[in-house]
Amino acid sequence: MAATIRSAAVRRVVGTAAVPAAMRLSSSKSFFPNEPEAPTVQSVVPGPNGNKAIAELSQVFDTRSVNFLSDYTKSVGNYIADPDGNMLLDVYAQIASIPVGYNNAHLAKAASSPQMVNALINRPALGNFPSSDWGEILKTGILKVAPKGLDNVFTALAGSDANELAYKAAFIYRRQLERGGPEVDFTEEEIASAMNNQAPGAPQLSILSFKSAFHGRLFGSLSTTRSKPIHKLDIPAFDWPQATFPQLKYPLEEHVEENRKAEQASLDEVEHLIQNWHLPPAAVMVEPIQSEGGDNHASPEFFQKLRALTRKHNVLLIADEVQTGVGATGKFWAHEHWNLQDPPDMVTFSKKAQTAGYYYASKALRPNKAYRQFNTWMGDPARAMIFRAIIEEIERLDLVNHTARVGDYLYAKMEMLAKQYPEHFRNLRGKGQGTFIAFDSPKRDQFLVKAKEFGINIGGSGATAVRLRPMLTLQEHHCDILVDGLEKIVKAL
Amino acid sequence: MAATIRSAAVRRVVGTAAVPAAMRLSSSKSFFPNEPEAPTVQSVVPGPNGNKAIAELSQVFDTRSVNFLSDYTKSVGNYIADPDGNMLLDVYAQIASIPVGYNNAHLAKAASSPQMVNALINRPALGNFPSSDWGEILKTGILKVAPKGLDNVFTALAGSDANELAYKAAFIYRRQLERGGPEVDFTEEEIASAMNNQAPGAPQLSILSFKSAFHGRLFGSLSTTRSKPIHKLDIPAFDWPQATFPQLKYPLEEHVEENRKAEQASLDEVEHLIQNWHLPPAAVMVEPIQSEGGDNHASPEFFQKLRALTRKHNVLLIADEVQTGVGATGKFWAHEHWNLQDPPDMVTFSKKAQTAGYYYASKALRPNKAYRQFNTWMGDPARAMIFRAIIEEIERLDLVNHTARVGDYLYAKMEMLAKQYPEHFRNLRGKGQGTFIAFDSPKRDQFLVKAKEFGINIGGSGATAVRLRPMLTLQEHHCDILVDGLEKIVKAL
Repeated sequence: MAATIRSAAVRRVVGTAAVPAAMRLSSSKSFFPNEPEAPTVQSVVPGPNGNKAIAELSQVFDTRSVNFLSDYTKSVGNYIADPDGNMLLDVYAQIASIPVGYNNAHLAKAASSPQMVNALINRPALGNFPSSDWGEILKTGILKVAPKGLDNVFTALAGSDANELAYKAAFIYRRQLERGGPEVDFTEEEIASAMNNQAPGAPQLSILSFKSAFHGRLFGSLSTTRSKPIHKLDIPAFDWPQATFPQLKYPLEEHVEENRKAEQASLDEVEHLIQNWHLPPAAVMVEPIQSEGGDNHASPEFFQKLRALTRKHNVLLIADEVQTGVGATGKFWAHEHWNLQDPPDMVTFSKKAQTAGYYYASKALRPNKAYRQFNTWMGDPARAMIFRAIIEEIERLDLVNHTARVGDYLYAKMEMLAKQYPEHFRNLRGKGQGTFIAFDSPKRDQFLVKAKEFGINIGGSGATAVRLRPMLTLQEHHCDILVDGLEKIVKAL
Repeated sequence: MAATIRSAAVRRVVGTAAVPAAMRLSSSKSFFPNEPEAPTVQSVVPGPNGNKAIAELSQVFDTRSVNFLSDYTKSVGNYIADPDGNMLLDVYAQIASIPVGYNNAHLAKAASSPQMVNALINRPALGNFPSSDWGEILKTGILKVAPKGLDNVFTALAGSDANELAYKAAFIYRRQLERGGPEVDFTEEEIASAMNNQAPGAPQLSILSFKSAFHGRLFGSLSTTRSKPIHKLDIPAFDWPQATFPQLKYPLEEHVEENRKAEQASLDEVEHLIQNWHLPPAAVMVEPIQSEGGDNHASPEFFQKLRALTRKHNVLLIADEVQTGVGATGKFWAHEHWNLQDPPDMVTFSKKAQTAGYYYASKALRPNKAYRQFNTWMGDPARAMIFRAIIEEIERLDLVNHTARVGDYLYAKMEMLAKQYPEHFRNLRGKGQGTFIAFDSPKRDQFLVKAKEFGINIGGSGATAVRLRPMLTLQEHHCDILVDGLEKIVKAL
């Protein structure tokens, strides 16, 4: 029975007959010697072994969001394995967080090093007792890829807390300015009221974010997240302002004036909120591409004007690069596409970095006293070392430029697909943005489920988008398999 | 020069002449074959090498809270090394977060395993694609030590997010109840208002915590933290209620009636706030011992009554065991000292667990729909495996019972010291609480600095307390060195 399913599914997947010969780069050699040539589908996913394990896990752990159980010992490169012998081409990559392939040999070497063992078993409180090699780990890793103009880092553990720590830095900075400078001490009233969660000590300030943004799900970050009701319902939130994010129409070249107006309207709304919201914003938080919220893009001009606007009103600009960062858009940081003269005040990162934190430049963003921005671990050196190995691997294989090229290749093929099946591939977007490509599907949820039958693990974003979030190791021959699979999915819908 | 300092300091430290022979257990054999017999002080701490490295690190990382740079490759057991050849007896242990000694051999073995390498290089999105062995890792690790009555876990990365996730679970639970049960769907109004951060979708509810509590420093957790102004100033906060934590007087046996009244007054205040606060509490959050806030204790009767009170008003009770958990009080979980029939609804953990999360029992605390409690990583299997190795080591050496015994030994010696120097060791507390011992010092900050000269790394809590937070591997002979050092410190103040 399994064999029957397999033969049918695999044959459907491995064929690439639909791809015009001129577009095939069959010569692209895999980065991973043991990577399969095509997906293998032995069973529905999850299969019997997976379902049994999920049932056991669900006794102690909420498994209702589980897609399938994975066998990471057998996963390799761009392929994810499950316990039923299935091997899927993974263009979701742990919600965009695997950068250089499963079981990457260089990462395995770093993970087996004595320095790693030391970091795992002697976890320091980094703010109090950093290890002698912490500076070196930062300089040869996290800071080696710091966005232009930003040369300091505050390390954290996940995207949510990285964002909240950046918000805290923004509030502290703003209040120091209002108080008359970092040397001006707190008043008695501020000290007393802070302990009661009241102003002026706990200030009546806000972070401005955009509609359909996603910035995390802790209480401060969730107050700036506006993606879906299921993320927010029943959780108390701060009364912080949201501006409309431009809703661009596609293809862009056919909607130039309309899109320009939408972007200007959004900027006008931001300025109005900065000037009028009852809790003044200390910072504007923005994703270069709204990722969880549906892959919503805006032009470099929009972001340039947003930078100018925030500068004009002395409001900080924070770029949330948790999902867009680390190469997937064909630049190491997606905000490099903006061509800013004046960089964002802070840039947050996580996911493909496998660790988290925020970059900043101005020493004025270091609070005026110690222990104002502090916690026990302040990150994890073990994960910071994994990021260092990721950076080395990205450099060795030139994976950012590679991803820009492969993205162009993939986008061209997706365009052809969209022309052939316009009803299934709507609002194709992400041109020139590496492999950070998405489209809207009228049967999105079915599409995602159906994809597994054809050996593709793929995810959605927003209400109707299918988002491609492959690793930086995606190559042309994977694109051929992917595009062929996408065609078969929509034919089967 | 360094040698001079050394000989003076070491001689002062290693002597144990002040300890009566009857109380010495010189036979206690170290758990670590290479552990030094006494601290070594070669220089002031930090010394020249340390200061040079700190200066370099501070170019890219805020180092104002750095105590000293540590050399974890040379640290062993209960001793922490620095780059200047100093070796201090560490009874602060990375803010109470090292459980079984530096460079513990069993942990090193776990950290070098192929399973660990796999977890480090193939980090899963645990909610969507857990590894096939995730259930086994939980059952043989985190869940093996689950508090009595609590058999489910939601994994997280640090104490702050563990607490906030528990708060989210409490809010969702409360709103489901108010809505008429988990099967009742959201209203249109709730869905629309949640996206605007407004009630009813973002409900007007709160978490009740105690004055001088510490529960973390993200926006939700910080709203329940009431330890020090420096933690809270300039950060917006929710208008959540705080009750007075009992301020017990010491010695306890001389203040029985007074302390009983203080505890009853606190309970009355809790009940009043539950019934009258304008944002009704969905949960009461409490530490078994207020650790960061100054080592404030309350009696088992207090907690029993708090459990009864929260049950009576249908408010959840969350025990924050981030600092008290994992053995240091002579029980695996400090709330075991309360002897409750009806366990807390949730127990949060981090620090000595080297990973984080919250335990719960009731399936009603699983939200009614998937993705309500979710994030990309939902913890880190690598760190969960380290906790499993810690648990194995605790079991192998029976370290919880060991810590109860050593704590009694240490407390008896501290009592003698307090009798001899009553002005320096005030309000000694933590009797019968393992090594979770503290006292107030009139010159606390000088005390902490001076301690390093005598080879002791020790921390403070609250405004005036010195807190002992040794590892579970602290033994009688370390206590002798510690108590001798404490005496020398106060003599030198």
